[in-house]
Amino acid sequence: MTVSRAIQDHYPPSFAHCYGCGPANSRGLHLKSAWSNGEIVATFTPEAHDMAMPGFVYGGLIASLIDCHAMATAAAHVERAEGRAVGEQPALRYVTASLHVQYLKPTPLGEELLLRARVTETGRRKVVVAVSVETGGSVTAKGEVVAVPIPESMSRARNDATQ
Amino acid sequence: MTVSRAIQDHYPPSFAHCYGCGPANSRGLHLKSAWSNGEIVATFTPEAHDMAMPGFVYGGLIASLIDCHAMATAAAHVERAEGRAVGEQPALRYVTASLHVQYLKPTPLGEELLLRARVTETGRRKVVVAVSVETGGSVTAKGEVVAVPIPESMSRARNDATQ
Repeated sequence: MTVSRAIQDHYPPSFAHCYGCGPANSRGLHLKSAWSNGEIVATFTPEAHDMAMPGFVYGGLIASLIDCHAMATAAAHVERAEGRAVGEQPALRYVTASLHVQYLKPTPLGEELLLRARVTETGRRKVVVAVSVETGGSVTAKGEVVAVPIPESMSRARNDATQ
Repeated sequence: MTVSRAIQDHYPPSFAHCYGCGPANSRGLHLKSAWSNGEIVATFTPEAHDMAMPGFVYGGLIASLIDCHAMATAAAHVERAEGRAVGEQPALRYVTASLHVQYLKPTPLGEELLLRARVTETGRRKVVVAVSVETGGSVTAKGEVVAVPIPESMSRARNDATQ
């Protein structure tokens, strides 16, 4: 069996529809996040229409990528802390409680973005993740994201919908 | 002459390509924000693929809508403070320095979202905007966004690109 390195490829099928990173969303961005040298990384090349204005990436896309990358990072971190490898079981599913993005400088459009993330705090009910967005060796945006386990209400509604 | 009430319809043509709210972006979301009873409001109905998981709106979309709505609010607020009506001149163009979104509860998919915004702080170099996202009378997310006038570097690059 080949185990994909991407966290999102191991999301449970019922929770794999996220526009930003769900493999099951046919219209989505399909962000893929994976371990690399002790941090979680992803790359993404925005399309021409993903612009704030000609030449620069739309801030909403940057926020979206940071959000999804942070959820994968929370899942991967807790999984590793519990002694499991990526793909050994379905990945844990977190949702965003809080998303804070600082746009440090304009992000040029047409280049590959590199997202790097690490966990800065782990509590019983939340995981805090710091994410940076780089292009051409320069960090253009930073995010701090609070991830919480998927709430009962979303999980229950999802199960009801599929029954 | 009919003057549109939407702030974004009066963005200068060179800066009207934003994915979230630019009238000139053929693939974009085309958010429209306008004055209503002393605040800036917008409505938006997410599409089926705009999901975090089946039944719930993608947080990245919510962040994107908050972002664009806040930029329009900053423009409209400063314009009004300077005694101008919407559409009297091209709208001012702000960009996001910081975006903070709190997801208070899951946002159900399939319903119209109402965004409401007001300016909480105006400085020489920044405008701070508070945004709420409501559906069915319930606030599901709140945003605080720091808007700054479009930086010289973006403006210059844009002008270079169109010459």
